[in-house]
Amino acid sequence: MPVELDPLLFGEIDPPQRLLMGPGPVNAHPRVLRAMSADLLGQFDPEMTGYMEQVMALYRPIFGTQNRWTMLVDGTARAGIEAALVSLVAPGETVLIVNFGRFGLLLTEILTRIGARIETVEAPWGEVVPLAAIEEAIARTSPRLVATIHGDTSTTMAQPLEGFGALCRAAGALSYVDATATIGGMELAADRWDVDVVTGGLQKCLGGPSGSAPITISDAAAEHIFARRHTEAGIRMKGLEDGQGPRIASNYFDLAMIMDYWSEKRLNHHTEATSMLYAARECARVALGEGLAARYDRHTRSGRAMAAGLRAMGLTVFGDDAHRMTNVTGVHIPDSVDGEAVRAMLRVSFEIEIGTAFGPLQGRIWRLGAMGYNAMKHKVLITLGALEASLRAHGFVLPLGQAVPAAIEAWDSAGVGETA
Amino acid sequence: MPVELDPLLFGEIDPPQRLLMGPGPVNAHPRVLRAMSADLLGQFDPEMTGYMEQVMALYRPIFGTQNRWTMLVDGTARAGIEAALVSLVAPGETVLIVNFGRFGLLLTEILTRIGARIETVEAPWGEVVPLAAIEEAIARTSPRLVATIHGDTSTTMAQPLEGFGALCRAAGALSYVDATATIGGMELAADRWDVDVVTGGLQKCLGGPSGSAPITISDAAAEHIFARRHTEAGIRMKGLEDGQGPRIASNYFDLAMIMDYWSEKRLNHHTEATSMLYAARECARVALGEGLAARYDRHTRSGRAMAAGLRAMGLTVFGDDAHRMTNVTGVHIPDSVDGEAVRAMLRVSFEIEIGTAFGPLQGRIWRLGAMGYNAMKHKVLITLGALEASLRAHGFVLPLGQAVPAAIEAWDSAGVGETA
Repeated sequence: MPVELDPLLFGEIDPPQRLLMGPGPVNAHPRVLRAMSADLLGQFDPEMTGYMEQVMALYRPIFGTQNRWTMLVDGTARAGIEAALVSLVAPGETVLIVNFGRFGLLLTEILTRIGARIETVEAPWGEVVPLAAIEEAIARTSPRLVATIHGDTSTTMAQPLEGFGALCRAAGALSYVDATATIGGMELAADRWDVDVVTGGLQKCLGGPSGSAPITISDAAAEHIFARRHTEAGIRMKGLEDGQGPRIASNYFDLAMIMDYWSEKRLNHHTEATSMLYAARECARVALGEGLAARYDRHTRSGRAMAAGLRAMGLTVFGDDAHRMTNVTGVHIPDSVDGEAVRAMLRVSFEIEIGTAFGPLQGRIWRLGAMGYNAMKHKVLITLGALEASLRAHGFVLPLGQAVPAAIEAWDSAGVGETA
Repeated sequence: MPVELDPLLFGEIDPPQRLLMGPGPVNAHPRVLRAMSADLLGQFDPEMTGYMEQVMALYRPIFGTQNRWTMLVDGTARAGIEAALVSLVAPGETVLIVNFGRFGLLLTEILTRIGARIETVEAPWGEVVPLAAIEEAIARTSPRLVATIHGDTSTTMAQPLEGFGALCRAAGALSYVDATATIGGMELAADRWDVDVVTGGLQKCLGGPSGSAPITISDAAAEHIFARRHTEAGIRMKGLEDGQGPRIASNYFDLAMIMDYWSEKRLNHHTEATSMLYAARECARVALGEGLAARYDRHTRSGRAMAAGLRAMGLTVFGDDAHRMTNVTGVHIPDSVDGEAVRAMLRVSFEIEIGTAFGPLQGRIWRLGAMGYNAMKHKVLITLGALEASLRAHGFVLPLGQAVPAAIEAWDSAGVGETA
């Protein structure tokens, strides 16, 4: 039944102070929340376009790129994915999807609606796809685009991408990487990987709210997209010729128009989501202020500490250990406990959220994240202590008091990351 | 040239305190800005889904509807438009567009990309389309959908919609109204108008930031959309059967999946943009707390005061006086002045933004808005005083000191609105 309108209009916004240790969204950095309280600006005010230019500059190092076209799509991370795919791919074109989890399936889903001819190269959930298999699949399928996921939170696996873009380029294919779950937490190297388009979101390792999707586009991909430019009749201007390529199937996600909006042409498209742009800007300032190497190291330590603590409880960590994401850890739910009851106790007694799972892993694993503002030693330790108590309360027999010291040792061990 | 990364990361967010008296975006209500600073929640936390239910309840009176499916699309107002159209219309279906400005052209643009067969019934910029012309066009074209704009800021015209939905329904057509520029400022009456889908945005009369698009969907339209349901392979569940209709061409804008996400099924789709949801909730609380009738009256007084002041300066208000929007006023730029120079003086000397114009009206009119938190007597008076001084500084000869008293008189005159 629909909720009835409360005469008191439901009261002031007052969410519980909950520690979000799932696969995202996670708690935002307080600086990011405060940045969103800044007053708004007209979308073509010089200060506003100045902030847009700053956002472009701030996200280049985060993506590991010099790409001019580095900006935001106004929507959640999924909006960035669809904008990339609908702008790159025309109906009937072949796309090779490197699929190892739910978000690979999402690429398939979006591309099916675009009308692409879809080929896949797959790994079982919990593994990644070897580069040699990708190379073989490219040779077999001659794709226009190769699309993959960097870190797929559904399986906690991180696909290695060194050499990926070169394989695509050698075969004349463009490349796309969804980095929603890794941006700001694991190194992105768009230029070194030689990939064409990478998209992300704020709500995981960047420590911001969902609702803005950073994107970077290589010059080659931008040229491909501009060849499909069809400017709206209401705002055509001199010097903006329509392209000869097939019209992009979405207006909102037309990256040619979005690039024209973010260029000095300032062609009107959507009305930029100003508060979310402020949030994206502050996320990047926090990340670059910390230093990316230090930030990635912090995530690495968090992931290792989490895994060490879980193992010290006698639990089994999920997936190929060599390719696990640093910022989210899957763990098998013991047969003897009701996973949802344990999760509920964590939420109700400890105000801590950990994640459930999708598809074939639903009911089989939990997913524990330590992302962005939550990738901190004390938050990992608190979560492990609370999980131990909750498991014990549900009758699971485990060695008491081992998880936290094991996690501390893993966190403190030298040589973990680049700056350790 | 791209902006280089500043070693100080461009400093704290610190926009100028500018009074935004254009056609939107406008300044947000301070309560809305503060609401966005609340901490985040997991997307399926009971408190989060509770807030989602509250948002549904809060937007029903704002849309003038009892529709169960009243919610948010995560993106700017344009995202709401595209979600409505791509979910309602399949390729090859006929859509009749009631077009009287730039945003009617935008409907054409979006529907062309969707592959609709487009028919139009038009009015010159500055007029609206008579109901009889719409009726004739429906009879002539037998559309599946009739789509229009409530208030088109490009021309400042408000299309009368009493009886509109009944005409469509009688002909077996669904109906769509883009109310981006009027929601929260002029009465919306989705149920009384008998229209199927209405969308809006926060950044105009609701006094919030761009980035969230409220939408309401009639049961008939929801049934039509659910017949096109195709749930993602990664998250299929029992009891959710795929429909027999043609698959919706977008994943992100698939209203069937978005309704399933906002229903008690809580089917995972995007990650709800939590901070924007908080903003949308607070916008509605502010509006309903004020009272909608009082709020519409405040916008009516603002528009009348603005027009009276402009006329007292000897300027000519643009467009059919009987159908002007209450919240934005077009005015002809005198031949003797450089419109952009006057706008620049308003911005630089007074920190006031007024709007330029699009297409055939570019360089011919300014657009002065008084929307949401800015639809206030003192802001209208300040703007008129500043415009008078700026026009005079640019050599325009006008009767001095007449605009403000004329505006005060218009504001204070009895019988303006429902609660005057």
